[in-house]
Amino acid sequence: MTNTVAGSTQVSFVDGQAGELLYRGYSIKELAKYSSFDEVSYLLLCGKLPSQDELYDWKTLLAATRKLEPESERLLWNIKLFHEPATPMDVLRTALSDLALRQMNIDNTSQLSLIAHGITLISQHPTLVAAYHRIHRNQPPVGPLPEIGHAANFLWMLTGTVPSDEEVRALDIALILHADHGYNASTFTARVCASTGSDIFSCICAAIGALKGPRHGGANVNVFRMLQEIRDPKKVEGYFSSQLEQNPKWRIPGFGHRIYKTKDPRAQILKPLAKEICHQKRLPWFDIALEVEKQALTLFRKRGKEDLQCNVDFYSAPLFGALGIDPDFFPCMFALARTPGLVAQCMEEYENGRIIRPLNVYTGSPLRSYVQLKDR
Amino acid sequence: MTNTVAGSTQVSFVDGQAGELLYRGYSIKELAKYSSFDEVSYLLLCGKLPSQDELYDWKTLLAATRKLEPESERLLWNIKLFHEPATPMDVLRTALSDLALRQMNIDNTSQLSLIAHGITLISQHPTLVAAYHRIHRNQPPVGPLPEIGHAANFLWMLTGTVPSDEEVRALDIALILHADHGYNASTFTARVCASTGSDIFSCICAAIGALKGPRHGGANVNVFRMLQEIRDPKKVEGYFSSQLEQNPKWRIPGFGHRIYKTKDPRAQILKPLAKEICHQKRLPWFDIALEVEKQALTLFRKRGKEDLQCNVDFYSAPLFGALGIDPDFFPCMFALARTPGLVAQCMEEYENGRIIRPLNVYTGSPLRSYVQLKDR
Repeated sequence: MTNTVAGSTQVSFVDGQAGELLYRGYSIKELAKYSSFDEVSYLLLCGKLPSQDELYDWKTLLAATRKLEPESERLLWNIKLFHEPATPMDVLRTALSDLALRQMNIDNTSQLSLIAHGITLISQHPTLVAAYHRIHRNQPPVGPLPEIGHAANFLWMLTGTVPSDEEVRALDIALILHADHGYNASTFTARVCASTGSDIFSCICAAIGALKGPRHGGANVNVFRMLQEIRDPKKVEGYFSSQLEQNPKWRIPGFGHRIYKTKDPRAQILKPLAKEICHQKRLPWFDIALEVEKQALTLFRKRGKEDLQCNVDFYSAPLFGALGIDPDFFPCMFALARTPGLVAQCMEEYENGRIIRPLNVYTGSPLRSYVQLKDR
Repeated sequence: MTNTVAGSTQVSFVDGQAGELLYRGYSIKELAKYSSFDEVSYLLLCGKLPSQDELYDWKTLLAATRKLEPESERLLWNIKLFHEPATPMDVLRTALSDLALRQMNIDNTSQLSLIAHGITLISQHPTLVAAYHRIHRNQPPVGPLPEIGHAANFLWMLTGTVPSDEEVRALDIALILHADHGYNASTFTARVCASTGSDIFSCICAAIGALKGPRHGGANVNVFRMLQEIRDPKKVEGYFSSQLEQNPKWRIPGFGHRIYKTKDPRAQILKPLAKEICHQKRLPWFDIALEVEKQALTLFRKRGKEDLQCNVDFYSAPLFGALGIDPDFFPCMFALARTPGLVAQCMEEYENGRIIRPLNVYTGSPLRSYVQLKDR
């Protein structure tokens, strides 16, 4: 399926050769510079940049649906009390599936209804992640503040302290950069689900299941685990030697991308942000990552793989870590940032109105006769 | 994607030209005659018919994991009390997602672990459906009986009365017939999810979301609603006239299939079973369906569509209805019967070990410059 065209989209364009990513025609480089995640979520769902009034209304709607529902809080505490081994992505999938039960007209897939449900999903998703991040540490959830935006509220609900402007801006940009990315596996999962005419909550739950996979949304966890193991920029060289001694084919987490044959534009933008927040908080993660990148590129040159570069996961890991996010929750960060893209892509699929039912080759046994149980 | 080959499978072969469906090389015609759903679930997951000892062990494992967990019961009552508008498929998706939270080693995708989780999924799925079927009517759940099999236990847990041998056999065959069907939309959703390395519960939750779609697992509901509206075989002709008067392009539910260009073999096998159970219980559903089929075929001949035939949904509807199943729960019946096929297909996908990340065509806006908010 890697080289198969599965459909079309107007939502985003991943230009792997040029190292460019467009949302609705706008470069993420410009969006990261000038825009906000609130605005980008409007852009993805509605197809255009909002006017001032439209953006005001959009933010008001997001704010109005941001509060944690008491049923969700009860569910999350129950999970904490009775289901300790569950991973945050399993919890998030369950909490969203449960949230769906309380929605009116969930099976209405008209554009207006999808936008309304999309707003709920976009705004509830960070709330659920922040709430469970606290609850799994036995801390009570913190309610949202009406006067601050999406990214700021996430950090506030996570920590209960007002975040710095730099932290808010860094997270906002990180969310923008993760908001959509063509037909990746989780988006495709959601689209196949949408093609049956199923509701948008089912599609997002399906996508979260796919994002959980270690070959997909789980990749930045491995980057952070590596940074934690190394602990000190001076120890990178020794770490590399010992890894390569154990396994000469060791794959360094956070490098290479299926689509980008040049630098991942998202990594380029995340790098200075990770630096700023790590240095502000006197955390070693950026400096270790920088040294890992240097040594990795040297290693790749030796191996003749000059085009291998760090991907989005490589610098999102030190950034998310520095923002106080538990690495077990990194895939949830990916999921909450990807929600607008998922909803927008499903909206397209509903428009298509045709079920995705691919063909398959049968490689199994030819027709054989049943053998009665007594004769086996 | 309809004419695109998305991959290969050894699990089942849908021969649309011959009207034949094979599981692991065995015709469903023989399996429906001689086998049982317990045996077929072993066949699908393990690739061969079990020996007598293997079948005994398999049934023992299914029985051991059949009981409703107290956490699940609490969840279902909470849903009944607080989330009345939720559809049974939304409830089932949530209950399975919640069940996943209590599993050990959920992220282990070794073959042995997948078979163990598969057994849990296969046996818990009917338990959850039966329990919620009762709870949503304010009836307490009924626990399974150790001495009876899978289909019998479902009917027992649903009604609290011991089902007749004919009812058990009819349901058992219906479950066999729904157990797998190549790369349909829900199976494909599950496989894309599995390709990321995500856990099997996430994959089955994703598949349930897709099966919920009206273009997929929701089709037999519309058949039963039609039979309920007609109410009497004598009124079929009048019903057809009034439907065609309102809409000359009226599509009769339960006819036609994307793959079968001849008779759907599953419908052929279900037809006499639906007749037997409806007549035994003096219910009109089969006689109405038979008359609908007759009139429909006449209509299709007039329209020059001689090859349009009834599909699996057409006779599963009167059968499920006669077995006492609420039509809102028909898609859940599809889901619980499809579980072994879903697990088997995901096992193949894990073996592939490569993420499904298709290409897409970008049909959106070309690169455009960002316009500052004040200038919009």
